[in-house]
Amino acid sequence: MAQNTLEKTSVTVLGLGAMGTALARAWRTAGHPLTVWNRTPARAAALAAEGVRVADSAADAVAANTLVVVCLLDDTSVGEVLAGADLTGKDLVNLTTSTPDQARARAGWARKRGARYLDAGVMAVPPMVGTADAGGYVIYSGSRELFERHQETLGVPLGTTYVGEDAGFAALYDVALLSAMYGMFAGAAHAFALIRREDIDPAALAPLLADWLVAMAPTVHHTADQLRHGDYTRGVVSSLAMQVAGAPTFLSTAEGQGVSTELLSPYFDLMRRRLAEGGGEEDLTGVIDMLVRRPTPHGEVT
Amino acid sequence: MAQNTLEKTSVTVLGLGAMGTALARAWRTAGHPLTVWNRTPARAAALAAEGVRVADSAADAVAANTLVVVCLLDDTSVGEVLAGADLTGKDLVNLTTSTPDQARARAGWARKRGARYLDAGVMAVPPMVGTADAGGYVIYSGSRELFERHQETLGVPLGTTYVGEDAGFAALYDVALLSAMYGMFAGAAHAFALIRREDIDPAALAPLLADWLVAMAPTVHHTADQLRHGDYTRGVVSSLAMQVAGAPTFLSTAEGQGVSTELLSPYFDLMRRRLAEGGGEEDLTGVIDMLVRRPTPHGEVT
Ligand SMILES: NC(=O)c1ccc[n+]([C@@H]2O[C@H](COP(=O)([O-])OP(=O)(O)OC[C@H]3O[C@@H](n4cnc5c(N)ncnc54)[C@H](OP(=O)(O)O)[C@@H]3O)[C@@H](O)[C@H]2O)c1
Ligand SMILES: NC(=O)c1ccc[n+]([C@@H]2O[C@H](COP(=O)([O-])OP(=O)(O)OC[C@H]3O[C@@H](n4cnc5c(N)ncnc54)[C@H](OP(=O)(O)O)[C@@H]3O)[C@@H](O)[C@H]2O)c1
Repeated sequence: MAQNTLEKTSVTVLGLGAMGTALARAWRTAGHPLTVWNRTPARAAALAAEGVRVADSAADAVAANTLVVVCLLDDTSVGEVLAGADLTGKDLVNLTTSTPDQARARAGWARKRGARYLDAGVMAVPPMVGTADAGGYVIYSGSRELFERHQETLGVPLGTTYVGEDAGFAALYDVALLSAMYGMFAGAAHAFALIRREDIDPAALAPLLADWLVAMAPTVHHTADQLRHGDYTRGVVSSLAMQVAGAPTFLSTAEGQGVSTELLSPYFDLMRRRLAEGGGEEDLTGVIDMLVRRPTPHGEVT
Repeated sequence: MAQNTLEKTSVTVLGLGAMGTALARAWRTAGHPLTVWNRTPARAAALAAEGVRVADSAADAVAANTLVVVCLLDDTSVGEVLAGADLTGKDLVNLTTSTPDQARARAGWARKRGARYLDAGVMAVPPMVGTADAGGYVIYSGSRELFERHQETLGVPLGTTYVGEDAGFAALYDVALLSAMYGMFAGAAHAFALIRREDIDPAALAPLLADWLVAMAPTVHHTADQLRHGDYTRGVVSSLAMQVAGAPTFLSTAEGQGVSTELLSPYFDLMRRRLAEGGGEEDLTGVIDMLVRRPTPHGEVT
C-alpha cells in the first residue's frame, strides 16, 4: 500500500455536477494531483480556487493523465464529451449511470479507441462521498487489470466492489439494488398512507417500520439459496398458499383506510398467478420466475 | 415484577394452529398454568402429553381462566368459537390477524359481553416464539388496563409493544409493516429477476442487496419527519424530478433483461403524476398523499 509520503496517482475528472464535484474534492483532499473539466466552466470555479487545475477542453483534460474518471449526466453526454479526445493508453473509468447494454457498448467503443475500460455504479449520494463510515460505495465491472491497478485511488472517495469482467454487470447490479430500494420505498409509502387519516404520528410508525424492514431484508439470502438450488419448497415457513390467503386482509385494510392498492396489488396478483400454476407449497421465490420472459419452443419470448 | 417463586398467571389459549401451539408451549415452558382448546382435538394431543389441561369445549376453556388468548384463523372463526362462551369479567386478548375495522367491531362486541379487550398483530413466525433474541414481537392496542395488568405474561412468548386505546391500531400497524415488507420483497424479486439470465450467482447479489436495503430502511424516519411538518422539500438530496429523470434507466434495463416491469412501473407512474402536479423539488414523500383518497369540496371522495 502506498504511504502518505509516496506520490499519489494523478486523476482527471470530467463532469463537475453534484457527484463529480464531490469525487474531485475527495481526491484533492487526499492529495491526488487533479485535472478537471466541466462543460459549464462556472461549476469548476470553486475547485480552481482550491488550487485544482482546470483544463480548457475535455481533450486537454484527458491528455493530462492516464486515469480518466467520467461522471456526466448520461451515456449520451459521455459520447459527446469524449468524441474529440485521444483515448489511446488511457484507463477510462465511467461513473455515469447507464444501462447494462449502454455500458457494454461503451466498453467496446473505448477498447476500439485504445483505452482500458471500467464501468461503475455509484451506490451513494454526494454527501456520502469522502466519508468512509457513511457506507457509500461504487460497484465496478469491466477490466480487472484496470481495477486492480487503481483500486487504491478509486477507493479514496467511496468504497469499491468489483463484480466481474462483463462491463454491463456494474450497471446491472446498480439497477438491481436501486430497483429493490424503490420497491421498499413503495411499500413504506403504502404503510404511511394507511395511517394518514388516523390520529397516529408518522414518527411513531417509523421506528417499527425501519426495524421490521431491517429484520426482513436478510431473507434475500434464503431467496438466493432457493434460486441456486431450484427447489422453492425447501425451508418454507409461510407458504405461498398461506400468503395468498392473507391477501384480502391487506387489500381490504387499504380499502377501509381510503388508500389505493396500486402499489400493493401487482405483487399479490403475481403471487396468485404462481399459486394458480401450482406453487402453493413454495416460498415467494417462484414469483421471480414469473417476471422473466422465457423463450418458447418456437423461439419466441413470452 | 413477579419473581420465579411467585404464582404465574394462568392462561387459556383457544386455537392450536402453528402459532397458537407455539404460544401455548412458550407459556407452558415458563411455568404458566395453561388450559387449551382446539376445534380439531388431535392438534392438542402433543400439549396434553406434556401435561397441559385440554378443555372439552371453547366455553369450558374460557371459564377456566380470566386471561383468555385467542389465536384462530380469522375474525369469523373468533366469532364462531366464542359464540357460546360467557365472557363476563374476562381479559380477552385476540392474536388472530384481522383488519382494523374487524378489530374495532370485535372490541365493541367483547365489551358488550362484559369483557376487557386487547387486539394484537403478531410480528413473528412460529419458530421465533419463545426465543427472546429472535426479534419477534406482538403489537397490542385496545384496553390499556388489560395490557398493563398482563404485560409480563404477554411478554413470555414474544416481545410486546402497545400502540394505543383504539382496538384497530394494532391491526393497522401490523398490516402497515407487512405491506411495507411485501413492497421490499417485490423490489427484491425484481432485482433477482434482472440477473436471472446472466452468469451471476444470486448468492453474489444477495449480500449487496441485504446491505443496501438495510442501509436505506432508515430513510423512513426522514419521511415521517416530512409528513409531520408537511414540507416535503426540506433536506432533499435526490429530488423527485431527478428521480423521475432516472426512471428510463430502470425500465429499459428491465426490458433489456427480459423482465416484466409490472412490479416497478406503478411506483414510477405515481412519481410521474406527482411531478406533473408540481412536486419536482420534493422528496418522494409526496407520492404518499397521492395514494390517499381525499374528500372533495362536494363531500365525495376522490
Ligand atoms: N447525485 C446523485 O445522488 C447520484 C447518485 C448516484 C449516481 N449518480 C450519477 O452520477 C452522474 C452525475 O450525476 P450528478 O448528480 O453529478 O448530475 P448533475 O449534478 O446533474 O451534473 C450533470 C453533469 O453532466 C454534465 N453534462 C450533462 N450533459 C452534458 C453534455 N451533453 N455535455 C457535457 N456535459 C454534460 C453537466 O455539465 P454542465 O454543468 O455543463 O450542465 C454536469 O457536469 C449521473 O449519471 C448520475 O446518475 C448521481
Ligand atoms: N403462522 C404464522 O406465521 C403467523 C404469523 C403471524 C400471525 N399469524 C396469525 O395467527 C393466526 C393463527 O395462525 P396459524 O399459523 O396458527 O394458523 P393455522 O396453523 O392455519 O391454524 C388455524 C387455527 O384456527 C382454527 N380454526 C380455523 N377455523 C376455525 C373455525 N371456524 N372454528 C374453530 N377453529 C377454527 C384451526 O382449528 P383446526 O385445527 O380445527 O383447523 C387452527 O387452530 C392467524 O390469524 C394468522 O394470521 C400467523
